[in-house]
Amino acid sequence: MADYPPAALRLVASLRKLPGIGPRSAERLALHLLSAPLGASEDLAHAVQQAKAQIKPCPECGFFSEDDLCEICRDKNRDCSLLCVVEHAPDVLNFERCGVFRGKYHVLGGLLSPLDGIGPDELRIPSLIAVAKKNQAKEVILGFGTDARGETTAIYLAKELAPLGVKITRLATGVAAGSGLEFVDSITLGQALSHRRSMER
Amino acid sequence: MADYPPAALRLVASLRKLPGIGPRSAERLALHLLSAPLGASEDLAHAVQQAKAQIKPCPECGFFSEDDLCEICRDKNRDCSLLCVVEHAPDVLNFERCGVFRGKYHVLGGLLSPLDGIGPDELRIPSLIAVAKKNQAKEVILGFGTDARGETTAIYLAKELAPLGVKITRLATGVAAGSGLEFVDSITLGQALSHRRSMER
Repeated sequence: MADYPPAALRLVASLRKLPGIGPRSAERLALHLLSAPLGASEDLAHAVQQAKAQIKPCPECGFFSEDDLCEICRDKNRDCSLLCVVEHAPDVLNFERCGVFRGKYHVLGGLLSPLDGIGPDELRIPSLIAVAKKNQAKEVILGFGTDARGETTAIYLAKELAPLGVKITRLATGVAAGSGLEFVDSITLGQALSHRRSMER
Repeated sequence: MADYPPAALRLVASLRKLPGIGPRSAERLALHLLSAPLGASEDLAHAVQQAKAQIKPCPECGFFSEDDLCEICRDKNRDCSLLCVVEHAPDVLNFERCGVFRGKYHVLGGLLSPLDGIGPDELRIPSLIAVAKKNQAKEVILGFGTDARGETTAIYLAKELAPLGVKITRLATGVAAGSGLEFVDSITLGQALSHRRSMER
């Protein structure tokens, strides 16, 4: 049985390693690249190499940056006394896209997960405390999910940050925007009820 | 609102051009490549460039090849008098994978489609006739689908090949292997009934 030439098989194997790309998708993408104009495949190859070469974590907050400091840390209009701690760099953009936060971020680089061998030493906790002190932070928002890792990390960080006397907050739990009540589980509903807000008039 | 650095946005845009990759998938793949070890992204970039540089259509049959002739055309054990005409190169592997064909292939480079401006001049028809003559082909199998483009092309090629006095065949139509009758449309069923075979004892 004949097969693709080795260079095509290597391309399929490389594409296959991307998340969510199965064997058939990898073959389809490879065939597309082989039949596309040379410019398109050169574009992709260069984009991969350039992004890899140029993008580094911001030394201040840990978000993606092409320069010394990232776009957010360079922005003088940001409120330095408001610090939002997130698990990893892509979370920063999730917060940015909701458009309600004008403070700074701190990327923790993970969440506590003893079963996966991730303890406090694997996370950027000393730099969090340092930056909270340096910026004389008034509030640290723990922007984690509400699963076990997020809860554990929030509790741990609250203790670590307590000596600074800073206000520590976490995200609200409740019914998702636009969700019918039939899609809400009972624990979420209980928390939404406990944390109910008075109506704005 | 902050956004990814330009190099990351260029990578997302490049990935976005791949078939079946939407904006969210492109972002997910880009984030994976950014956080993966350098080796993985270099691998992908090189695989794209190498495949593009090394793989060319076989001058004989039109299948993918890294050498002068493709693996199939170099194979001396293949029956040259049996020629299977296919629409494009990936079809060759579909036939190879079913494991019942030991002849040679000819990639037509498309199917007749007047509405898309694809006429006989866009297809590798002269080389098909030349190779059928040179190999003294006994049978030419028209390995196309049964849509309008496949049907039109099959009828056209049958006329073009007629002067050679070669036997011309096409793929059987009928019920797909392993399919329940409830999934078969009435035209297919009619053809499966018309072309019914006697049971092997």
